[in-house]
Amino acid sequence: MTYCVGLLLNAGMVFLADTRTNAGIDNIATYRKQFVFCEPGERIIVIQTAGSLSVTQTVIAKLTEAIEDPESGPDSSILQAPTMLRVAEMVGQTLSDVSADISAKVSRMTQAASASMIVGGQRRGGAQRLFMLYPEGNFIEATEDTPYLQIGEHKYGKPILDRVVTPDTSLEDARKVALLSMDSTLRSNLSVGMPLDLLVVHRDACAIAEQTRIEAGDADFLAMSEAWSSALRDSFKAVP
Amino acid sequence: MTYCVGLLLNAGMVFLADTRTNAGIDNIATYRKQFVFCEPGERIIVIQTAGSLSVTQTVIAKLTEAIEDPESGPDSSILQAPTMLRVAEMVGQTLSDVSADISAKVSRMTQAASASMIVGGQRRGGAQRLFMLYPEGNFIEATEDTPYLQIGEHKYGKPILDRVVTPDTSLEDARKVALLSMDSTLRSNLSVGMPLDLLVVHRDACAIAEQTRIEAGDADFLAMSEAWSSALRDSFKAVP
Repeated sequence: MTYCVGLLLNAGMVFLADTRTNAGIDNIATYRKQFVFCEPGERIIVIQTAGSLSVTQTVIAKLTEAIEDPESGPDSSILQAPTMLRVAEMVGQTLSDVSADISAKVSRMTQAASASMIVGGQRRGGAQRLFMLYPEGNFIEATEDTPYLQIGEHKYGKPILDRVVTPDTSLEDARKVALLSMDSTLRSNLSVGMPLDLLVVHRDACAIAEQTRIEAGDADFLAMSEAWSSALRDSFKAVP
Repeated sequence: MTYCVGLLLNAGMVFLADTRTNAGIDNIATYRKQFVFCEPGERIIVIQTAGSLSVTQTVIAKLTEAIEDPESGPDSSILQAPTMLRVAEMVGQTLSDVSADISAKVSRMTQAASASMIVGGQRRGGAQRLFMLYPEGNFIEATEDTPYLQIGEHKYGKPILDRVVTPDTSLEDARKVALLSMDSTLRSNLSVGMPLDLLVVHRDACAIAEQTRIEAGDADFLAMSEAWSSALRDSFKAVP
């Protein structure tokens, strides 16, 4: 399982992903699920992934190959695509192709291989945009009304997002709410696990403002988690 | 969808259920999902239901028929069963039979009819016990380590339960945490809806201490929900 969240705010964007993957409960490993493609000042594209690792790794590998191919153009390299909408379409198409290809192979085992993704970013002169791609490759976009998108084990971490996040939320608060939303998910679902990958992007900078891997046992994260638990218990006592 | 929760505490038991049922999103109705069978002072059995209404209604009807049948004995009437474990087995067997019967009928439409249940209660001289019945009729029991059980849309309301509930939680706090857990679920899933049925039982009383239907727009519930939202936002600000 996985939990990834992306927030689209007036001040910028915040992305947070866990790193635990598992095949059954006795085969657990750490894999990055957050990928950044950036030409600083020019454009930044962040992709977060959930679902079958064989699908998501192949999608990221194909996107990377296309970027590195000297013959690639605006139709094949997401770093040359004219708009973020086009980027979402290209990632969606790759996801759909890879997923169909792998599913055909594994269907003999009556399994399906699928994945979903969060794609967000900005290109110089364009707007910040954030998309959630379904396994079929189609997608929805974050809006002012719902300025965040989640993939994977999304339910435990949703109540805090619903209550706190608006487009005017500061990046500092957004960073905090993303971590608290992850904290609730970590507590309730063992298949979501540390370390975490956190990425903060300032609006119009088209560059990484902060990129942190938060390891298990990170003192700040533990302190925040502990403070949130006691604040919640205090809040609980305060409610009439 | 549905959300029901039952808490097993040293001081007694608390049960909370929503009442919304739907067949598709344009056929919504209110049905009771919390049922009490009580001989005051002698025994109390509470059943909460989630899943296909055709299954749950038939199960409750069959259990009621067996109770009312003058020829029924300890093997057929849950009000005469010698232990709460036996009650859970009887309800589980009825659930399994009804569910198999109805599924056989609807399988031509490639649908399955299933349901899950919370069964809790106490018999004079016995211990309070709380069970969660799976659609197949087998069940698990609440323990000191995990003194609550949920059915239906359980994820949104779980973080607050995990943080607050221990066997020593007072009935007043348990009532509050059940309502806050429901409040988080109501906010995040439209298919869970008011009114709510709340039931409180004191340990060893084998009687109903409080049975309330909380209607949409209930002033106390709204005030609690509002206070919880602001307390959460304050907590959020207080976390470093």
